Amino acid sequence: MEIIKPRTLSGFMELLPAKQIRFEKMTEILRTTYASYGFAPLDTPVIEDAQILLAKGGGETEKQIYRFQKGDSDLALRFDLTVPLAKYVALHYNELAFPFRRFQISKVYRGERAQRGRFREFYQADIDIIGDGKLDILNEAEIPAIIYKVFRGFGLSRFQIRVNNRKVLNGFYAMLGLSEKSGDIMRTVDKLDKIGANKVKVILLEDCGLSEEQADEILKFIAITGSNAEVLSALEGYVGRNEMFDQGLGELKAVCSNLAAFGVPESNFAVDLTIARGLDYYTGTVYETTLLDHPEIGSVCSGGRYDNLAGYYIDKALPGVGISIGLTRLFYVLDEQGLLNPELPSAPADALVLPMTADVAPAIALAETLRSSGLRVQLYGEQKKFKQKMAYANKLDVPFAVLLGEDEIAEGMCSVKNMRSGEQVKLTPADAAAHIKAALDADSCAVILEK
Amino acid sequence: MEIIKPRTLSGFMELLPAKQIRFEKMTEILRTTYASYGFAPLDTPVIEDAQILLAKGGGETEKQIYRFQKGDSDLALRFDLTVPLAKYVALHYNELAFPFRRFQISKVYRGERAQRGRFREFYQADIDIIGDGKLDILNEAEIPAIIYKVFRGFGLSRFQIRVNNRKVLNGFYAMLGLSEKSGDIMRTVDKLDKIGANKVKVILLEDCGLSEEQADEILKFIAITGSNAEVLSALEGYVGRNEMFDQGLGELKAVCSNLAAFGVPESNFAVDLTIARGLDYYTGTVYETTLLDHPEIGSVCSGGRYDNLAGYYIDKALPGVGISIGLTRLFYVLDEQGLLNPELPSAPADALVLPMTADVAPAIALAETLRSSGLRVQLYGEQKKFKQKMAYANKLDVPFAVLLGEDEIAEGMCSVKNMRSGEQVKLTPADAAAHIKAALDADSCAVILEK
Repeated sequence: MEIIKPRTLSGFMELLPAKQIRFEKMTEILRTTYASYGFAPLDTPVIEDAQILLAKGGGETEKQIYRFQKGDSDLALRFDLTVPLAKYVALHYNELAFPFRRFQISKVYRGERAQRGRFREFYQADIDIIGDGKLDILNEAEIPAIIYKVFRGFGLSRFQIRVNNRKVLNGFYAMLGLSEKSGDIMRTVDKLDKIGANKVKVILLEDCGLSEEQADEILKFIAITGSNAEVLSALEGYVGRNEMFDQGLGELKAVCSNLAAFGVPESNFAVDLTIARGLDYYTGTVYETTLLDHPEIGSVCSGGRYDNLAGYYIDKALPGVGISIGLTRLFYVLDEQGLLNPELPSAPADALVLPMTADVAPAIALAETLRSSGLRVQLYGEQKKFKQKMAYANKLDVPFAVLLGEDEIAEGMCSVKNMRSGEQVKLTPADAAAHIKAALDADSCAVILEK
Repeated sequence: MEIIKPRTLSGFMELLPAKQIRFEKMTEILRTTYASYGFAPLDTPVIEDAQILLAKGGGETEKQIYRFQKGDSDLALRFDLTVPLAKYVALHYNELAFPFRRFQISKVYRGERAQRGRFREFYQADIDIIGDGKLDILNEAEIPAIIYKVFRGFGLSRFQIRVNNRKVLNGFYAMLGLSEKSGDIMRTVDKLDKIGANKVKVILLEDCGLSEEQADEILKFIAITGSNAEVLSALEGYVGRNEMFDQGLGELKAVCSNLAAFGVPESNFAVDLTIARGLDYYTGTVYETTLLDHPEIGSVCSGGRYDNLAGYYIDKALPGVGISIGLTRLFYVLDEQGLLNPELPSAPADALVLPMTADVAPAIALAETLRSSGLRVQLYGEQKKFKQKMAYANKLDVPFAVLLGEDEIAEGMCSVKNMRSGEQVKLTPADAAAHIKAALDADSCAVILEK
C-alpha cells in the first residue's frame, strides 16, 4: 500500500488528548455557565449561502472567507457567529420569544495568512440577548457578569473586564463639534496603550486635523482614570452639554451599579474611556477583557450593545447585546503563558481498572460499580505484563489504578493505588469509589480555595 | 437598506431553541457516557488536505465530498470521523498511549442529493479503541455495552444491538468453497429483511451462481435464530471444519459473555448472522442497532472490529474497534416518530425571575442565589406588564416563575409559581431553590422509573 504522509493543515489547531481534555473542560464551563443564565444553545450550519453570509459585504471578510461552488450553489463557511445569528433570528422571527437569549460555541473560518497563534479554524463562544424593538439596560450588566463567572471558572483571577459606552464617546465628540471625525479619533485613541499619549496627540493634530484645544480636550478626557466611582464622578462634570452623553453616562452608571449587584468585584471590571470597539455596529455599552499580567495579548473577550442585528435580512428593529470569546486563541495563549489552570483534568479517566486474572468478568463488574458513582473509569483489557500496565497508567496520567487479582476477588475487595503518592489501599468497590472521589474532590477544593 | 431574504441551505439541520436544547441534552449524554468509560475527546479540523482525506479514494465518497481550492491548497471537508482519526493516530503515533480510546462528536459533510431526512451536514458520534499491533477481544464487548448505556440515557428501551462476527461468516463461506464470492453473498443476504428468503435464494442461484445445495446451506445458516445461547449452540455444530470460523465463534462467545457481565440485558442485544457491514474494512465483530418498533429506519448505530486503521498513512498494524451514531439523523427520526424522551428538558431555564420593582438589585441577588444551587435561571429585566411577562414565561415553557415584588423583598421572601400546576408559594430564596430542585428531580425520577 502506498503511504501518504499524514499532516494537519497549518492554522488548524489539533490537540493531543491531555490538552484536548482541558480544552473540553473549558467548553463545558462555558456551556454550563451560559446555560445557568438561561441562554439557549444554538447550532447553525458551518456552510451557508455565500450571498446571505456576505449580505453586509466588507473588505477583509470577503478576502478571508472560504467560498466555493458545489453544483450550482455559491457557498461559504461562516466567518463569525453573529451573521448566522442575524440570519437565524430574521428567519425564525415569528417562532422566537423575545428577548431571545442564545449561546453558541462553534468553529468559524477565516483564511488569514498563517502565523503563530493565528488560526484559520477557531472556536468562538458567543452569548447574545436580542430584543424585539426594545432591550433593557439590565442586560448590558448581565453579559459581563457572566463573563466574570466564566473566567473565574477557567481558574483566572487577574483579568479585567473593561466597560465603556459609545453614547458617552459620541456625545463627548459632539460637544467638541467632532462628530464627523469620531471614527478616526476613536481609531487613534485605541492606540493609546501601544504608542502613548504624545504620539496620539500628534496623529490627532496632523492626520485627523484637530485643533490644539480639541486634541487637549480629548487627551484630558481619555486620561480620566481611577476607581469606577472616580471615573463616573469625573464624567459628571460633562453633564448637561449633550443629550446623548447624558444618556450614555446614565447607562454606564446603571451597568456599574448592576455589575456590583451581580457580585462582580471592582478589581475585575473597570470603566475605561479609551475603549471604542470598531465603528458602526456598536451603539451603547462596549466591552473588552484583558489579562492584567499579559496586556500584550490584547482583548480576549469583546462585545457590546448594538441597535440593529439583522437589518440586512428583516425589516424589524432588533437591538441586542453580546460578547464573544475567541476560545481557540485564548486557549493557545493561556497554554503558551502557563496560565492553564493546572487543576483542569488532563487524564481521560479518574481510574484505570487492571484485571490480574484471566476471567475479566469481576473486573468488568468492578469498573461498572465505580462508574455508577460518577467516576470516569477505563478498564484495561490487554494481556500485558504488570510493568507495562503500570507504564500505560503513567502515560495516561490517571490519578488512580485499581488492581483486581485473585486475592482481592476472593475477599470482595480491590487494591486502589494512588499514582501520585504511590500509596496503595485495599478497599471494597463501594469504598474504593468513595476514596477516589474524596481525593479528586479534595484536588478540586484546592483550586476553589486558591481563587 | 436592501433586504436579502434569509434562508438556511436545504439538507442542513437548524433547530428552534426547544428542540436544540433536547439535541444538546443528547450530546451531553453521549459525552458523559463516553467519558465515563475513559474515552478522551478528540477534535479534528473540519477542513483537511483533500489528498490526505481521499487517500483511500473510492467512488461515492469522492462524488459527495465538498472539495475546493483556497490559494494553492486543495481542500476538502471531512465526510466521516474515521479518516481524520486514522490521520491523527498516524501523525501522533509516537505521542499516543495505546490502546488509544477516543470519542468524537462532530459534524461531517456529504453533498448528497437533498431529500427528506437526509442531511448534507450531520453529526456523527463515534467511539474507537485503537491498539498498537494487538487489541484484546474485551474491547469488542465494551463498545456495545457503552452504546446500550447511551440509548438508555436517550430514554429508549425498545432497541436491539445486533452482533455478528466476520470471521464466522468468512469461515462459513470458506467451508462451502465460496470465499471468493463472499462479498456478493453478504450483500445479498443483507437484503433478507427487505426481500425475504425466497428472493435471496433466487439471487444466490442466478446472480451469484451458487449451486442449489450451497444456497440451501446459506439459507439454513442465516435462518439460525433464537436466544443468543441457542444461536451460539447451533453454530457449535459447524465447529472443526474451518479455523477462521472456530476463531470467530470463540470471539462471538466472548463478546456475548462479556456483554452480560457489563449488565446489558439479552433483550437489548442479539447475535444476528445476517449482519455483515460492508466489505473489506471490518474483520471481526460487527454491530448494527435497530429500533424494534421501527425496523424500517434501518441501523441507527453501526461499527465493528477492523485490523488496519491507518495503512494509508503509516506502516504500523493498528487494529481497532469502533462504532458510530448518526446523531442528526437519529434525532430527526426520533422526533418524527414521537420517540424523543418527553422528559428531556426543552426550556432554556428552570426558573424565570420576574422583578416587580424598579430597583432590580434584589432580583439580581435572588437570581444569583438560585443559580448557586445549580439551577438555570433567567432574569427578566424588560419593562413590561405582568401579563406580558407571564406570556413570555409560557412561551419559553419554563417550569417555574419566581416573582419578586415589594412585599416579598420586605419579607425576605419570593413567590414561586409552578407554571404547570399554577400553584404559587411564598418561600425564602434558599427554600425556593430547594423547592424547584425537588420538583425538577421528581420529574427526572419519573423518567428513570419508567425505564
